[in-house]
Amino acid sequence: MNTQILFLYADRSDVSLSCFVLGDSPDLMAGKKRPAILICPGGGYFNCSDREAEPIALKFASMGYHTFVLRYSTYTGTSGFPDLAKPMEIKESCIHPRPMRDVAQAMRLIRAHADEWLVDAERVAVCGFSAGGHNAAMYATRWQEDADNPRPAAAILGYPLTDYVYKRDEEARLDPMARSFFRKSDFAFLGTETPTQEQLEDVSPAQHVSERTPPTFLWATAADELVPVQHSLLMAKALADHNVPFELHVFETGMHGLGLADQTTSAAWSQTNPDVAKWAELAGAWLQKRFALPLAEKTEFEEMLERGEFPGMGNMEDEE
Amino acid sequence: MNTQILFLYADRSDVSLSCFVLGDSPDLMAGKKRPAILICPGGGYFNCSDREAEPIALKFASMGYHTFVLRYSTYTGTSGFPDLAKPMEIKESCIHPRPMRDVAQAMRLIRAHADEWLVDAERVAVCGFSAGGHNAAMYATRWQEDADNPRPAAAILGYPLTDYVYKRDEEARLDPMARSFFRKSDFAFLGTETPTQEQLEDVSPAQHVSERTPPTFLWATAADELVPVQHSLLMAKALADHNVPFELHVFETGMHGLGLADQTTSAAWSQTNPDVAKWAELAGAWLQKRFALPLAEKTEFEEMLERGEFPGMGNMEDEE
Repeated sequence: MNTQILFLYADRSDVSLSCFVLGDSPDLMAGKKRPAILICPGGGYFNCSDREAEPIALKFASMGYHTFVLRYSTYTGTSGFPDLAKPMEIKESCIHPRPMRDVAQAMRLIRAHADEWLVDAERVAVCGFSAGGHNAAMYATRWQEDADNPRPAAAILGYPLTDYVYKRDEEARLDPMARSFFRKSDFAFLGTETPTQEQLEDVSPAQHVSERTPPTFLWATAADELVPVQHSLLMAKALADHNVPFELHVFETGMHGLGLADQTTSAAWSQTNPDVAKWAELAGAWLQKRFALPLAEKTEFEEMLERGEFPGMGNMEDEE
Repeated sequence: MNTQILFLYADRSDVSLSCFVLGDSPDLMAGKKRPAILICPGGGYFNCSDREAEPIALKFASMGYHTFVLRYSTYTGTSGFPDLAKPMEIKESCIHPRPMRDVAQAMRLIRAHADEWLVDAERVAVCGFSAGGHNAAMYATRWQEDADNPRPAAAILGYPLTDYVYKRDEEARLDPMARSFFRKSDFAFLGTETPTQEQLEDVSPAQHVSERTPPTFLWATAADELVPVQHSLLMAKALADHNVPFELHVFETGMHGLGLADQTTSAAWSQTNPDVAKWAELAGAWLQKRFALPLAEKTEFEEMLERGEFPGMGNMEDEE
């Protein structure tokens, strides 16, 4: 495995691509190209959480895909949450559409290295969680706005925000902490705590789904008190309305931000949930319908055996 | 993730340890140590197959464990199978007990780096497949013969050879190709095609199980025509006889050498088998009983909320 960190822009250390490029071997793919997954961690556009970074990359790498973790533009860069009690200043470098453009830049970077890394450039999925799920969904629904943007082959979205109009309209249902969190998140991402209707629609992937949106795998928990499950349901409805293939799994229990919901993405056992943890396997099965590796039907050895040859084993009759 | 290849001996390029050391993060383990798995690929003591190397490492890495792939001493080093039709010469550097000692050396190397890599040195498992399963089982049953050898905390063995006496006694049941394969494998590993009874017993882990053998997870297929399932059953019986905790899964179908039995370890679809592929999840569940990460019960954030504090979010009452 080739692991390295590339920076998307020469003048910024906060936007990076962590690469997990699988090794090639004559015993396995023998020079053939593999699909890849580009992963956007969550963090409310304040930061990119490590909980939704390397462990997610390794989960999909363990399914046979190259993986890449994108630290896109966020308020603090990679240094954790800001003190949300303090006044915030506008950071132009992290405001929409910068995060979505970072996804585009990462997709181009992966495409540019496709031969070197043995990436099947036509089969690169975007994946994200929470705000990272929003960012991935933004690219999945709006990539076609720039002719230089590679088409994502699939999207995998965990407990994403998908509809900022819904979020504004239902703000009163949130508990005070969640409400305060989102006001500040909006400030980080949109430069204002009171975005206009036009701004809200602009950043609502559920309102930009089209026939060019790739097949999408969605999952969430019905008990999520920070990003209500309605976001996933509205996205699923939009996909259904546009006949985009999708799969949706809503688990009854489980708080926001469970990641893989097992010990690999958790700082505490409270962040694990064996029911929810099934999502990754479901996603893998869904993904393999589109991202199956280009394997032969039989091994060369089997084919030789069928022809009555025992390669490299001498004449077996002599052994009798 | 820190990936590097270390060489176990200054004068040999064929014996190496490929390291997959998981990244630390304040969001996750925050400096605490993780268990690790040392993996021995198979290859009949002719070579170490890439099919049972990186993909296996990534599977266990995706469960939250540091992983290490050991290319131990084999006839060809890392360069594939020799032409088995040609006469072989004795290679002292790969003959028993060298492969088992390579495991010991790797275990010591991991222990020596435990602080640097954040490895829980008391929880390092050995794992192997086919001949690599044999090598791992050799160490699991005989590590106590050298006081400098770290105790393995668990063993995970896939379709291993465990009893060379049984193998010799039942040789006639094998098809000619398998019989020829094992004669040459014996020559590579023992320096003779006709080992003595004493030699056979010496390299039969099933005959060396003791109360010092660690808990062991075994799996095999009943249909294996190269390494009969009896090897796993004899090992399981020895573990049961000595009250060593173990788990055994025998799948009805599936040829020898399936690895993870999914697309990640396969050059062809014939090497996949969805029933057999369940073994890794079973192994993960078994392993987690012993190798659970040292997580807190609740996150710091949850504990603050329970105390009525809203960290970094200002005074929520003001927001009402």
